[in-house]
Amino acid sequence: MQVVRTPDDRFVPPPTKGHVSVARPMRWWYVACASSELQRRPLARTLLGIPLVLFRDDAGRPAALLDRCPHRNVPLSLGRVLPSGRLQCAYHGWQLDASGHCRTVPGLCDETDAAGRRAPSFSTLERDGFVWVFATPDSQPTGEPISLPLRSAPGYATIEHVLDVEATVHATIENALDVPHTAFLHRGLFRGSGTPNEICARVRRWGDRVEAEYLGEPRPEGLIGRLLSPSGGTVEHWDRFLLPSVAQVEYRLGPENHLVVTSICTPIGDFLTRQYAVVSFRLRLPAVLVRWLLKPLALRILQQDAVVLSRQTENIRRFGGEQYESTEVDLLGPHIWRLLREAEEGVAATGGAPVLEREVRFRA
Amino acid sequence: MQVVRTPDDRFVPPPTKGHVSVARPMRWWYVACASSELQRRPLARTLLGIPLVLFRDDAGRPAALLDRCPHRNVPLSLGRVLPSGRLQCAYHGWQLDASGHCRTVPGLCDETDAAGRRAPSFSTLERDGFVWVFATPDSQPTGEPISLPLRSAPGYATIEHVLDVEATVHATIENALDVPHTAFLHRGLFRGSGTPNEICARVRRWGDRVEAEYLGEPRPEGLIGRLLSPSGGTVEHWDRFLLPSVAQVEYRLGPENHLVVTSICTPIGDFLTRQYAVVSFRLRLPAVLVRWLLKPLALRILQQDAVVLSRQTENIRRFGGEQYESTEVDLLGPHIWRLLREAEEGVAATGGAPVLEREVRFRA
Amino acid sequence: MQVVRTPDDRFVPPPTKGHVSVARPMRWWYVACASSELQRRPLARTLLGIPLVLFRDDAGRPAALLDRCPHRNVPLSLGRVLPSGRLQCAYHGWQLDASGHCRTVPGLCDETDAAGRRAPSFSTLERDGFVWVFATPDSQPTGEPISLPLRSAPGYATIEHVLDVEATVHATIENALDVPHTAFLHRGLFRGSGTPNEICARVRRWGDRVEAEYLGEPRPEGLIGRLLSPSGGTVEHWDRFLLPSVAQVEYRLGPENHLVVTSICTPIGDFLTRQYAVVSFRLRLPAVLVRWLLKPLALRILQQDAVVLSRQTENIRRFGGEQYESTEVDLLGPHIWRLLREAEEGVAATGGAPVLEREVRFRA
Repeated sequence: MQVVRTPDDRFVPPPTKGHVSVARPMRWWYVACASSELQRRPLARTLLGIPLVLFRDDAGRPAALLDRCPHRNVPLSLGRVLPSGRLQCAYHGWQLDASGHCRTVPGLCDETDAAGRRAPSFSTLERDGFVWVFATPDSQPTGEPISLPLRSAPGYATIEHVLDVEATVHATIENALDVPHTAFLHRGLFRGSGTPNEICARVRRWGDRVEAEYLGEPRPEGLIGRLLSPSGGTVEHWDRFLLPSVAQVEYRLGPENHLVVTSICTPIGDFLTRQYAVVSFRLRLPAVLVRWLLKPLALRILQQDAVVLSRQTENIRRFGGEQYESTEVDLLGPHIWRLLREAEEGVAATGGAPVLEREVRFRA
Repeated sequence: MQVVRTPDDRFVPPPTKGHVSVARPMRWWYVACASSELQRRPLARTLLGIPLVLFRDDAGRPAALLDRCPHRNVPLSLGRVLPSGRLQCAYHGWQLDASGHCRTVPGLCDETDAAGRRAPSFSTLERDGFVWVFATPDSQPTGEPISLPLRSAPGYATIEHVLDVEATVHATIENALDVPHTAFLHRGLFRGSGTPNEICARVRRWGDRVEAEYLGEPRPEGLIGRLLSPSGGTVEHWDRFLLPSVAQVEYRLGPENHLVVTSICTPIGDFLTRQYAVVSFRLRLPAVLVRWLLKPLALRILQQDAVVLSRQTENIRRFGGEQYESTEVDLLGPHIWRLLREAEEGVAATGGAPVLEREVRFRA
Repeated sequence: MQVVRTPDDRFVPPPTKGHVSVARPMRWWYVACASSELQRRPLARTLLGIPLVLFRDDAGRPAALLDRCPHRNVPLSLGRVLPSGRLQCAYHGWQLDASGHCRTVPGLCDETDAAGRRAPSFSTLERDGFVWVFATPDSQPTGEPISLPLRSAPGYATIEHVLDVEATVHATIENALDVPHTAFLHRGLFRGSGTPNEICARVRRWGDRVEAEYLGEPRPEGLIGRLLSPSGGTVEHWDRFLLPSVAQVEYRLGPENHLVVTSICTPIGDFLTRQYAVVSFRLRLPAVLVRWLLKPLALRILQQDAVVLSRQTENIRRFGGEQYESTEVDLLGPHIWRLLREAEEGVAATGGAPVLEREVRFRA
């Protein structure tokens, strides 16, 4: 019969530009899970919409396969890891090794390995407490994940937190690096409502990252700022985006306070992003006080962001696309989008001098 | 990769005509909310699939904008109304006035109004306890909402009730004006199961409405009829549809009983209709008795209708379209559909003589 | 406005072959319900995605119509069966007979039957405790449902069980007739983990069925096998698929033990299958012991199968299609699919000599 599209397919609001800031850079490393999450059992994770099964081979090295048995397409993550380090499917007991090759088909007299009896496999790398996966299977990986040197640097303490956000990686990272919203969405928590000063930011973009450096920024008003630097003073502050999906905020208040918030984002799906937040700091406050005092505030801020991002996502999907109107104050968002799109198309270049450098004045 | 349509896309039942009675007359007024619902806070409403935010400006006048901040597309209804009567977005604090223009972008040094920084705005009108909205934004409205004179007429009492129905406006209004179903769906409540009499209806259609006048209709059997007119007698009875979405049932039983049920329908989506029922009456029964006695009966009737309409909608969507078979007894349904479709195409004309007039005999 | 496909439409995993083993053989008989389920009230059932209403006419014969009133498309199953054996719609009271013709339109003065006032009707047949329906409406049925002679044979007892499985008919039946998975999915319950023997199966396919006969199969290890034949010995064992949707497993252990499990599958939708399992047996164990001892084990096995099938279905839909890799050990699955596809295209022939005959060696 003729397929009839129901009327809901038509949508009445004024047309959008028909664009959604979703990019899928495939030849990059992403965090698949924390090292501590991957133990004896196979672990199901989704990366860029791709179902993965993670497991450790007999030497404890992480392996990642497409989560689909080549035989009858049951998720391999339903199975179990044998002492040999092979993954055994729950349905018919096929045994796959870390490279995805099928080594045993129970019942079969002639067990010669056949090319089709293979699950695509993803390169893995374990570093800094995370299991990283290269998003293109059966492929020689390029580049390396970012490193997190402060995580084990002397004098530094580190807090980690994982949070799922119903938003694109672009929206999540723009939010994480955006200064102006803090005075409204996080009113009183992060930045105060005092008279704003005109400050200057220098924006520099390279082939694989973009950074805003704030010049002459006063100590943030609000509780957090007052605790960290009771005597006020200016701040050194950088906001960075690093391809494919890392947001980094770095603060220095005088010689003794140093704080780096690294949000490593994993695109689970186009509109679902997992944030692995790693906060390393050396502050004049004792680390234990920071944990007990600041963590609840930080979680409240993250929660407020998560709510507004999910409502933003809902609205964008409802309208069938974005219709953003950016101003000078949107320092990094348009650059982040440009880098993501270039990374998706494979033209991202690393190193060298900035391809763009400019100064922006705004009030904060 | 190639997109694979899953087999569920094929649908096996015998083909339907492939039509669903959904119309979207855009250049008309609709009720967006009751006046009492719109107070200090912005109010989110959906009209014809369009997300709206309603708020009152500093003079208390209702305003309606597309519920999407021009900046980062967050719903404006998450924000707050400032004492200035401007609507402030919750995310970055952009301030929009009742015309949708952005008056303040926090942080921006050069705040010149830019054309893109605008939310489409909808004409509004507050009357008879309702906030009406013209469905086409940024547009000079044509026509006027219907008025409800009995709502404040001496000797009349009014009961109001709001109900959401999972059905198209067409199905909802056909049901509200349909006589034959009452003997089955509302058996015993509204019309009895006595031997039907042959009666006559005069149907007249104008460019913007259609009316059935019942001639020689006996007093309805059942509880409601007996309470209103214990001595029996004939009834004057009109069923009317008024574009774009009003169903009106008017009864006169002798000189003292007068009852007008006006169902003002708001198409929230194609298959979700909000009914604002306004029942004005001057009856031989005391108004308080009417409220306490008849309201539960009326609500039960509305509930029975809502159930059958939602099951009808479910079936129509399951089959991918309607396949209606009308008879002479379906007095108004086909006319309502014709008017809705004309109104969607913009050819509806008001006033003048009826374009159609006919008499139909049936048994009720 | 232009319809914008949201990015989720793109899907990143490696391409599948883009095939799902869904077939819809329409000119065949299927079980619509158990006889005991169809009493006074109309009964809604779905077959191959087609909504049906079943009812009994005044002589108690089952009737099946498309579950949509020709008038306003409300499900007829909301109505009631009149003493005349006609089905009365709940909305406007139209009365339809077992052939789908409308015999009464309440209110209508001229009640001449009109061709459009008809619901498509499906041939029915009541046999062996089931109501069977021919899936093509308004059509002379071909063929007959399978019969279940052991259900009333002397010396045999019968257990019945109904179970819904979230899987295609193909996956459900392949699973029901598959030997190798029992050692893994049902480890310890059905087959043991002892050293497998090499056995042989003879596969024969006709135009309307395929059968595997196992030659020299030892008594199954595990609890069920030991109970049935404590002294061991070989087994006669056949696995059969009969078009359009019947899986049958037959065991003989010596002269006294005979067990036939017939799973009659009804495709409710493409990915939802109802299994009517009929287990007839004559065993050396008393029937009451079989019921109390073996039924819980059998239900546990069915449940394990249902779980793995639903996860398989979920994965196939997530990937947009199947990508199966079969081996020699997949004795029947590819044949079942071939027969289903031929049945859908209408080329299935019955009777005669096998069109295919081969022997397969494997270890079990």
